[in-house]
Amino acid sequence: MNKVTIALLQHSCGDNVSKNLDKALGMIDSAARKGAQIIATQELFKSRYFCQQESYDFFRLAEPVTERSVTIKELSLLAKKRKVVIAASLFERVAGGVYYNTTAVLDADGKYLGKYRKMHIPDDPQFYEKFYFAPGDLGYKMFKTRYADIGVLICWDQWYPEAARLTALMGAQIIFYPTAIGWLPADKKEYGERQHASWETIQRSHAIANGCFVAAANRIGREPNSEKGKEGIEFWGQSFVADPYGSILKRSSTEKEEALIVAIDLDVIETKRVQWPFLRDRRIDSYGGILNRFNEE
Amino acid sequence: MNKVTIALLQHSCGDNVSKNLDKALGMIDSAARKGAQIIATQELFKSRYFCQQESYDFFRLAEPVTERSVTIKELSLLAKKRKVVIAASLFERVAGGVYYNTTAVLDADGKYLGKYRKMHIPDDPQFYEKFYFAPGDLGYKMFKTRYADIGVLICWDQWYPEAARLTALMGAQIIFYPTAIGWLPADKKEYGERQHASWETIQRSHAIANGCFVAAANRIGREPNSEKGKEGIEFWGQSFVADPYGSILKRSSTEKEEALIVAIDLDVIETKRVQWPFLRDRRIDSYGGILNRFNEE
Repeated sequence: MNKVTIALLQHSCGDNVSKNLDKALGMIDSAARKGAQIIATQELFKSRYFCQQESYDFFRLAEPVTERSVTIKELSLLAKKRKVVIAASLFERVAGGVYYNTTAVLDADGKYLGKYRKMHIPDDPQFYEKFYFAPGDLGYKMFKTRYADIGVLICWDQWYPEAARLTALMGAQIIFYPTAIGWLPADKKEYGERQHASWETIQRSHAIANGCFVAAANRIGREPNSEKGKEGIEFWGQSFVADPYGSILKRSSTEKEEALIVAIDLDVIETKRVQWPFLRDRRIDSYGGILNRFNEE
Repeated sequence: MNKVTIALLQHSCGDNVSKNLDKALGMIDSAARKGAQIIATQELFKSRYFCQQESYDFFRLAEPVTERSVTIKELSLLAKKRKVVIAASLFERVAGGVYYNTTAVLDADGKYLGKYRKMHIPDDPQFYEKFYFAPGDLGYKMFKTRYADIGVLICWDQWYPEAARLTALMGAQIIFYPTAIGWLPADKKEYGERQHASWETIQRSHAIANGCFVAAANRIGREPNSEKGKEGIEFWGQSFVADPYGSILKRSSTEKEEALIVAIDLDVIETKRVQWPFLRDRRIDSYGGILNRFNEE
């Protein structure tokens, strides 16, 4: 047995950034006391999901993400104090006009291990991320932490088997997905159930295809939209952890603020990959067309 | 509405090859009379799943797959007569020592459109396919048939997001998976349920990731193993069709011989891909590592 206990933070966010941060820090502290060793936040956990609107005002929420930056230092202190690994999703500012959707990873001694910048950026009604974020330029990442080798991908990346594959091929045993996904109230009746099912299914499939654990942390709550006639987004929660067979080990509720704490056995990865040796039989000689947008005649 | 009706044949197989063929021809004929326009067989439908054992004897089951070969001509006549597209999975012999696991496609006028050779070949206890089949050398395929543009992948290919992606990027609206998968009785209690769940989940995920239909035809029945102490395989049936949201439109039983006939609306593909524009945001500049077996440090 090679056990590690992970936790996914799922909470609502208000207008006050420092209150949101305090809430997350409190949840990390509490999860650590309950035995969590690797803890991931939801996407952009310090603020409301501002990408619902295109507004210049929200760029003031962005901050540097380096080992010396304010939020990273605060997270680092807590990581060290509680001996926990933290994957924290932040709105990164590099320079005026250069912003990313970024997740930083702190090791259990507080050391800043680096960051991943969201590679796949959506642009859909009320998810106007292309307005705010440049596409990630650091590629896929694997972080060797004290408790496990982890990968981090972010929300829209969830829909791309390529991103999960590449992260797993770097050696990630667990892929964390900080997420902010929910229903538009007008769509919920017709599409809500299958949107959620699609979301869960494709992430379970990444666990199956790659023989790794997948852990998605989503936010909860209805967040208003300042534009006239827009009803906001109802985030669907349901953070979950799937094992290498794609089985859901544990799932949060749709509405409850909670840290989903799950003990997993990393040895299952090797067992599964020996039983179903998908990596052995990949036809790497035949995948060149993946590098095209579409293979037109 | 751009409707097409597809059918997946699910049946047991006995020792007698010509009886198995007659059964499948009868099921094609019957499905066509019920309105099916594109009909796919299960994997290697003319015989028992001989790959349970490694035996030189079974190579006699192999046959040429060309527009002039015997089985293709017979299927072609039926395709023309009933105005149906047929995707038929056959054990192909090219020369002594050169055999493939192949699916041929006949158009609704009986024309032979070509073949796909299984790219990913398994080798697991009682699934000794590497002994029988050379890995496919024709790459991924899209066939423009009278009723739809279809792709064909075969069984073990199911586990590879790359194969589905490449087939969809060629323009396939429906990906058919002739399959022979089942439980080893000794494993069924511990792993049976999640093996089946993994299999269905990953194929649903291909429909989601690519915004296409997925249709998997599996065999049924317990087939004996001639080796001492081996209990054979219990094929789990449950052929199914999933729509571009990954929703299962219809699923066969575990044990009943049947043609699963499903009317689908090809216009859903465009609707889904507009709603969830995953293909737009693929980071093709970042996928080079997919062409490696593993990205070692």
